Amino acid sequence: MPVFYDCTTAPSPRRARIVLAEKGIAHEVRQIDLASGEQLSDAYRAINPACTVPALVLDDGAVLTDNAGIAAWAEAVQGEPPLLGTTPLEKAQVASWNSKIEGECFMAIAEVLRNKARGMVDRALPGPNNYAQIPELAERGRARLTHFLDRFEQHMTGRDWVAIDSFSLADITAGVALDFAGWVKVDVNEGRPGIAAWRAKLAQRPSFAI
Amino acid sequence: MPVFYDCTTAPSPRRARIVLAEKGIAHEVRQIDLASGEQLSDAYRAINPACTVPALVLDDGAVLTDNAGIAAWAEAVQGEPPLLGTTPLEKAQVASWNSKIEGECFMAIAEVLRNKARGMVDRALPGPNNYAQIPELAERGRARLTHFLDRFEQHMTGRDWVAIDSFSLADITAGVALDFAGWVKVDVNEGRPGIAAWRAKLAQRPSFAI
Repeated sequence: MPVFYDCTTAPSPRRARIVLAEKGIAHEVRQIDLASGEQLSDAYRAINPACTVPALVLDDGAVLTDNAGIAAWAEAVQGEPPLLGTTPLEKAQVASWNSKIEGECFMAIAEVLRNKARGMVDRALPGPNNYAQIPELAERGRARLTHFLDRFEQHMTGRDWVAIDSFSLADITAGVALDFAGWVKVDVNEGRPGIAAWRAKLAQRPSFAI
Repeated sequence: MPVFYDCTTAPSPRRARIVLAEKGIAHEVRQIDLASGEQLSDAYRAINPACTVPALVLDDGAVLTDNAGIAAWAEAVQGEPPLLGTTPLEKAQVASWNSKIEGECFMAIAEVLRNKARGMVDRALPGPNNYAQIPELAERGRARLTHFLDRFEQHMTGRDWVAIDSFSLADITAGVALDFAGWVKVDVNEGRPGIAAWRAKLAQRPSFAI
């Protein structure tokens, strides 16, 4: 059975956790304690040299070291329910929104958090190397996040789901990202009824509760 | 016939241009002059509100607004040659390396360039909003790029291709990114024979010459 390296409190592994739950893919779970820096330990480095969670170790020993790999693998081994779209246009729309949310939203929140939090001095980026915080980048992240949320509200107005007519990976990435925004004290629902309605729907899915 | 919005000199649209060439997907080309800011014009904004190239307008009018969407669509409409992997593990490996190179390499180079170039004052990020340059981010980008290249050299030593046993999207993304490194005066081949050998092989592909 695949072994899933998780950290229940962190947003990145939550994305993969939801994918595995939606697909009904059985797996064992091992927690990596990011708060104490366990991702940088020799033991975990031997599993994922990128020193990040999530990671998924397959039955043959192959290791998937990030969300991109885990989502692609899960869609290929367990087609139902499809999370990456079905038609060529749907596949494009899901990939495009997933990428956009990673780059414009997830990253903006991470910039705010990692360049400001006292517990993240010299950990401004995940991974094996240390980087000093850049306070201006935290400020820019906050500005980017507001710009993104305002565009995203326009997009979500009158829509059921982020990328296509059904729930997809883009909803997972966006839903986790917008919950993550709470970490930097941004109320994404405030003044954004389209986003708020869609988030309320997401919150009812069992996969989002685990 | 799909219409491809390109800018011959820029790295991002080059990625999609190579995908279309490798797949043999016929298309018309329209150049957007990034040097004069044409991507911010009302005319182009009406096509791609993200104000970025590449974009691909399909026969039914649907617009694919980024590399992620164009690659997913191209793979779905024209399976041969496969660029996203064939087995579940291959699909994971291609997605994972593509994501890693975007986040750790492409972005690092863009940080160096956009936070320093005199022609990019207030254009530290692509898209419709202006952001001031952050000189510390240019420095950090250079450090990240070096760290990435050293890890990537270890990975490429003894390998033919980036992600799997055959040429894939990960080779396109990495190949374009490492050519882009020349813009910030980094000689990626210097002291890195594995990378140099692989780049020499890429340079022989007709798709990399257009």
